[in-house]
Amino acid sequence: MKRGRLIVLDGLDGCGKTTQRSALAAWLPTSGLMPEGAGLICTREPGGTEFGQALRELLLHAQGDQAPVPTAELLLYAADRAQHLATTIRPALERGDWVLSDRFSGSTLAYQGYGRGLDLALIHQLEEIATAGLVPDLTLWLRLSAEQSIERRRGERDDRIEAEGRAFLRRVAEGFAAVATERRWCVVEANQPPEAVTLALQQALTMTLT
Amino acid sequence: MKRGRLIVLDGLDGCGKTTQRSALAAWLPTSGLMPEGAGLICTREPGGTEFGQALRELLLHAQGDQAPVPTAELLLYAADRAQHLATTIRPALERGDWVLSDRFSGSTLAYQGYGRGLDLALIHQLEEIATAGLVPDLTLWLRLSAEQSIERRRGERDDRIEAEGRAFLRRVAEGFAAVATERRWCVVEANQPPEAVTLALQQALTMTLT
Repeated sequence: MKRGRLIVLDGLDGCGKTTQRSALAAWLPTSGLMPEGAGLICTREPGGTEFGQALRELLLHAQGDQAPVPTAELLLYAADRAQHLATTIRPALERGDWVLSDRFSGSTLAYQGYGRGLDLALIHQLEEIATAGLVPDLTLWLRLSAEQSIERRRGERDDRIEAEGRAFLRRVAEGFAAVATERRWCVVEANQPPEAVTLALQQALTMTLT
Repeated sequence: MKRGRLIVLDGLDGCGKTTQRSALAAWLPTSGLMPEGAGLICTREPGGTEFGQALRELLLHAQGDQAPVPTAELLLYAADRAQHLATTIRPALERGDWVLSDRFSGSTLAYQGYGRGLDLALIHQLEEIATAGLVPDLTLWLRLSAEQSIERRRGERDDRIEAEGRAFLRRVAEGFAAVATERRWCVVEANQPPEAVTLALQQALTMTLT
């Protein structure tokens, strides 16, 4: 059966995921790594589908009484992921296309699990329900400290999750480190010039997916 | 610890839940069943909270690419329920108030489980996550056949779930029967004049909650 590859970029806000996703999207089709004829789908979580867009709004911008309680928040992330898998990622992989996603289930573990302190067993259970066991072929972790993330995002408007402060971000950074070790993610230092990060990502992809 | 009661009205669309909820809401405070000073909260699923309203829109009216896949749909119902429990039902019960809900988790089993044929084990798992084990003190099932439901709703505009047709509604009706047996719901025939249904419900409440 033809089967594409799922590549995930993950890390703290400000780590350069968006910039690097664009750089990789331009480079991958010319890299010699992808089979001839394979397409490249660039996507993200939350909000990689039209349905997910509506959930993303609720997850990142709901205020007051509209804000979800922690369990409801986890269930929405899982719903977003289930939709993303079923309508975007899985069909692309089955066509033989490659998928490059800005965040995936590791972010839920880092932010909701380690950051918020929600039950890791419940998060794993919901991940299994949402992904039906599909795991990325490669996750590229753009490593950044909580302090660097805050420094880089100075002046930007915070969304609901990002507004939770410095101690929260430190726990999320530690969470990423724990998940990266456990799941054998590929680590790239994010705190260097964008061109150097891109080069490091290209090397990691070449070594892993050839 | 002071603890109120959770009473659920459930059944097929057209069974009279809305009418009967109003009738019971007027009668219960004068019934002698409720302790002095206890309030009565009337609510519903999906959409019993401000957050849930946004989900209800997505669940019942999303079209085309915005419509959730089955697993995403189940996760949204669970998110709605988790929010409803945490912000409305549980605080009310802890204050000693009574809660009268139009639908609860039995509807998910009947519609998504029996109607759509989604995995019952997954539905049970999500029910457990969303309710954290809270079960209604009494569920009143307004029994109606699929044919009677269609007859009663003739001329009304169908929402996304109701539009799935006669065979689907038959499976849902069978689902309600199965769940009602398994969970020892109180059965009231819905296919009689509204006043007779109200009287039967009042009798059931009096017998069960005295």
